[in-house]
Amino acid sequence: MPRSVLAVDIGGTKFAAALVGPEGDVRAAERAATPPGGDAETLWKALDALITAVAGDTPVDGVGIGCGGPMTWPEGAVSPLNMPGWRAFPLRGRLAARFPGVPVRIHNDAVCVAAAEHWRGAGRGSANMLGMVVSTGVGGGLILGDRLIDGGSGNAGHIGHVVVDPDGPACECGGRGCLEAVARGPGLAAWALEQGWIPGRASGASESGTAGPAYVEATAASGRRLALDAAAGDAVALAAMERAGRAVGLAVASATHLCDLDVVTIGGGLSQAGRLLFDPLEETLRAHVRLDFARRVRVVPASLGQDAGLVGAAALVLAADRYWSPRR
Amino acid sequence: MPRSVLAVDIGGTKFAAALVGPEGDVRAAERAATPPGGDAETLWKALDALITAVAGDTPVDGVGIGCGGPMTWPEGAVSPLNMPGWRAFPLRGRLAARFPGVPVRIHNDAVCVAAAEHWRGAGRGSANMLGMVVSTGVGGGLILGDRLIDGGSGNAGHIGHVVVDPDGPACECGGRGCLEAVARGPGLAAWALEQGWIPGRASGASESGTAGPAYVEATAASGRRLALDAAAGDAVALAAMERAGRAVGLAVASATHLCDLDVVTIGGGLSQAGRLLFDPLEETLRAHVRLDFARRVRVVPASLGQDAGLVGAAALVLAADRYWSPRR
Repeated sequence: MPRSVLAVDIGGTKFAAALVGPEGDVRAAERAATPPGGDAETLWKALDALITAVAGDTPVDGVGIGCGGPMTWPEGAVSPLNMPGWRAFPLRGRLAARFPGVPVRIHNDAVCVAAAEHWRGAGRGSANMLGMVVSTGVGGGLILGDRLIDGGSGNAGHIGHVVVDPDGPACECGGRGCLEAVARGPGLAAWALEQGWIPGRASGASESGTAGPAYVEATAASGRRLALDAAAGDAVALAAMERAGRAVGLAVASATHLCDLDVVTIGGGLSQAGRLLFDPLEETLRAHVRLDFARRVRVVPASLGQDAGLVGAAALVLAADRYWSPRR
Repeated sequence: MPRSVLAVDIGGTKFAAALVGPEGDVRAAERAATPPGGDAETLWKALDALITAVAGDTPVDGVGIGCGGPMTWPEGAVSPLNMPGWRAFPLRGRLAARFPGVPVRIHNDAVCVAAAEHWRGAGRGSANMLGMVVSTGVGGGLILGDRLIDGGSGNAGHIGHVVVDPDGPACECGGRGCLEAVARGPGLAAWALEQGWIPGRASGASESGTAGPAYVEATAASGRRLALDAAAGDAVALAAMERAGRAVGLAVASATHLCDLDVVTIGGGLSQAGRLLFDPLEETLRAHVRLDFARRVRVVPASLGQDAGLVGAAALVLAADRYWSPRR
């Protein structure tokens, strides 16, 4: 009988859950806003209700969880940066108690996205891949030799903290000049505001209040707004996309040399800017990868969209030979 | 019966060969200067004679080879940058023909050093390690999840081409601001000369001609000379060591974040500078690794010295479960 697992994707703005079939097919997905300011049990109850809506009494062969870091791993006590209600919350343990007798596995949300893109998305068929998410933060996951790389503490793939500008902006991690400090949506928007950007002006949003997809607040200084304004020709927004693209290109060049990559997939809100981001990225990357082996690297848009986190969480169970190997 | 393998280490200045026992014990090592300007067959004959001197008629259970890159891998047609006589020379094939019936395996020389430090040296007991060589070039090898990482073409570990200064000096790879461009011995010496360094002056070598170990030409503008002059208090030489240490620290910070490393081992001529290199390295590294998981990384001097290349080449055969996994 085909197996089906429960996949859970925990983010600061929304929870998602779904049943996922053996080929990575997402069924019965449900999403709910993360209760803002919720304490630990409020958050857990909201998740519990979402899971009940999705799984009901359906027996599942396992549970895969993607969650924002940091966390203890593979134990799965989570302290997501943008969910102050959960600090060392035993998320994996709670779900293991709710689903006894089946494997319950957890990994960083960006790692799950990378696993998904490798398993069923734009990195399929490549044995050596970096999967990136460029959004409110910059995260990633690393697949080498056709296996998900965990690193010593489950934190491999932190491409967002590769240093791209040693004298660059301070990073929330406490360091300086990290890719994330330069290219995360809010950082980029702050930089653009300093340069005189007026959110929504170029695309007429400040007059009509409607330009762009419904989920982009018309005049909010967000990375998505910046991407839309760049598409509408705003000079500062375009410069911001170039700034982000160059920074990503540098980090990808370094990762390619260190890990001998075949493919890099890029998803997340900022990747919606398309060529406005990818063109400067490619230009910088190609200027820095000149050795024969490194030139072969390809950078492609991620292909799974908002389902990626769920598909990757499911892969921890459904394709464990490649995506699950904690040493205990 | 304990196994013994023939290990071969091919460099631009010397060839080395030895029998290596099952615990990585080096026996009967022989070294010979690389014939300067030799054509392909001259180089091969010199190597063949060295192997005969070491192995004679002793049966061996395999052959491990470390050689400067680039090369096709795992086929082992080599084109070492500093040995123009070998271009696509079928080194592994020649040795396989000379030693029929046993495994004959090859890897990049810096990768072999990393494998050696992990197997028998300063990285022993760590599952996630970067082994670096900072010398005429800057190379390395990557061990993750207790396995040597090859990457898509056998080139994983190229830490020397992590970008540490996007607007920095041109690199011989064709890129710009690579760690190697900043920190390789000749690059560092050139920088020091520009700053007014007079090789050997600080240590009295230009008068006596004898300061420093015999293998360091008294007044040559080399990385080793620079290290000695820094130890003798030469201000420019000290600044050069700081420059190198900071660059290495940045690259190690990036690698630590991307690969979630436990340990980094550093060998090669420049590492002889000891604290003059390691202190600025640590200072820069600690300023950039602030996330909890990354702070645990330790940077330690390599411990196997000139035998490392031989021990690592032998490990390709003697500890193949960890150090040999080409997918064919």
